[in-house]
Amino acid sequence: MTLAVGVDLGGTNIRAALIDVEGGRETGDVKAPVQNKNPEAVADLVAKLVAEVDPDKKRVGVGVGFAGMLRGWTGVVVNSPNFGWREVPLRALLRDRIGERTELYNDLNAIAFGEAKYGGAKNIADVLCVYVGTGVGGGLVLDGKLYIGSTHLAGEIGHTKVVPNGRLCGCGQRGCLEAYVSGVHLQARAQEELHAGKQSSVIALAKSIDNVHAGFLDQAASAGDAYASELWNEASGLLGLVLANAVTLINPQRLVMGGGVWQGAPELKRRTLDVMRSLANKPSIDSGFSVSDTLLGDSAGRLGAAALVSGVFS
Amino acid sequence: MTLAVGVDLGGTNIRAALIDVEGGRETGDVKAPVQNKNPEAVADLVAKLVAEVDPDKKRVGVGVGFAGMLRGWTGVVVNSPNFGWREVPLRALLRDRIGERTELYNDLNAIAFGEAKYGGAKNIADVLCVYVGTGVGGGLVLDGKLYIGSTHLAGEIGHTKVVPNGRLCGCGQRGCLEAYVSGVHLQARAQEELHAGKQSSVIALAKSIDNVHAGFLDQAASAGDAYASELWNEASGLLGLVLANAVTLINPQRLVMGGGVWQGAPELKRRTLDVMRSLANKPSIDSGFSVSDTLLGDSAGRLGAAALVSGVFS
Repeated sequence: MTLAVGVDLGGTNIRAALIDVEGGRETGDVKAPVQNKNPEAVADLVAKLVAEVDPDKKRVGVGVGFAGMLRGWTGVVVNSPNFGWREVPLRALLRDRIGERTELYNDLNAIAFGEAKYGGAKNIADVLCVYVGTGVGGGLVLDGKLYIGSTHLAGEIGHTKVVPNGRLCGCGQRGCLEAYVSGVHLQARAQEELHAGKQSSVIALAKSIDNVHAGFLDQAASAGDAYASELWNEASGLLGLVLANAVTLINPQRLVMGGGVWQGAPELKRRTLDVMRSLANKPSIDSGFSVSDTLLGDSAGRLGAAALVSGVFS
Repeated sequence: MTLAVGVDLGGTNIRAALIDVEGGRETGDVKAPVQNKNPEAVADLVAKLVAEVDPDKKRVGVGVGFAGMLRGWTGVVVNSPNFGWREVPLRALLRDRIGERTELYNDLNAIAFGEAKYGGAKNIADVLCVYVGTGVGGGLVLDGKLYIGSTHLAGEIGHTKVVPNGRLCGCGQRGCLEAYVSGVHLQARAQEELHAGKQSSVIALAKSIDNVHAGFLDQAASAGDAYASELWNEASGLLGLVLANAVTLINPQRLVMGGGVWQGAPELKRRTLDVMRSLANKPSIDSGFSVSDTLLGDSAGRLGAAALVSGVFS
């Protein structure tokens, strides 16, 4: 049995677990809120959690899924809006505290690998995994291996453009998919439009405009509300188009979908998959292709990061 | 020195060469027109050309780049509009005549591998290669290996959708990139619109409407002709968007571009690359990314197919 520690390093919480890599089982997990975003303090907290889940150092290594942009395999964080970091040598800080066999992965890459080895795409070689939640991200497992691209940016499907010169995205560019379908953007846009006078039954559902989010919009769209339905047609049209084109280009056997918006908005999901199936290259989806929801939920990233650092599947 | 035979099996001509795989050199090549599209006759002709370039069977194998859709690694042609074939067991027909070590590759995949090993992306691990010619196709070399996808359809960028329910494509679906920027579609559309009364200086350049093709349209657009310029704005906008999104999703280190339209339309190329650079995820193109034209031209497919079948790079 190979044991490795998997860590989810997000902007709000850090979770860690000791994982039986061959079995894909977590032997208990621990969680702590990120209260101090100073890089040294974050590294200290990760080291503390790692020591808690694996006090006897039974691990072959520590894999960390990180919500931010990394520079290739250098372990340097180029940019992380969640932490407000730029150019932070996070891996070095972690290795100082935990040991040499510590590796950083982009969070969506770790999730994609977890789903491909243990979850919604188990035993499948070519997998595209897309999360629609607070933001929109993706990861690619190709020929059974994590594909990170030339600079660790493969899978950045949230920043493919859907409306040239369209809505402003958090990344600073305009017209990104994320600016149209992420939870943050859907919520902000709907609240803004409703405050500006648009009428919708979603206000009654949510009790107030300031409570409107993707889940309520989905209920309203499903019930036939005109405002929510139009917004959902746009969002599903754009997300479905991007997914269709990604499937056409990459020809995965399985598309794994997850994230808070995706899982909390069944009407958006239904419409998106209809669009995706109508726009994908027919031969690319007619033979052996399927879509699955994430099966591992919150633990996908920890499992994936532990599996990656263990080297068991490479 | 490893020798392998590379074959380009296109709908008009077949070309074959004996290739020094390590050196990437062709030791003479032969060419014959396809006069009879019967599968047995085509296989006979390929075998004849292979025997001409390698009479002493110095080869380790024969790699064939084929213009059509293949079913995984079965060697069966699912569909080839160029040959009018469906469900043809081409590899079996070839192996009967040439020997067991004969393999079929999608033509654009072979070209991508050739460019990645010897041409516009030599020594580069992650490469996206796109050809804009009669049709539009692409190939992916990732982590130094050909990536064919789960059913040998990876790289079908010509059938990503750019205008949902848009112009009819040869594949039977609507709104494919190919229906907007391939040589066949650009020529047919321009001739149709000019016959319908659109005014443009391209008619004088081409001498007659029926002679108008992408090359003349490019000259007219470059000289400021309104009709051609508008058509070029649309084509470059769509092609640039698709290339940008592919670069964002796949994060290649190099994009290699080729094909008759691309190479014969410098104004379209300039505008397309401007659009691509403005719409790609900035971090994905800001560090180490570059674009190259095909360096091998017509021989890329033969070189790539020979390299693939030799196994030297795998």
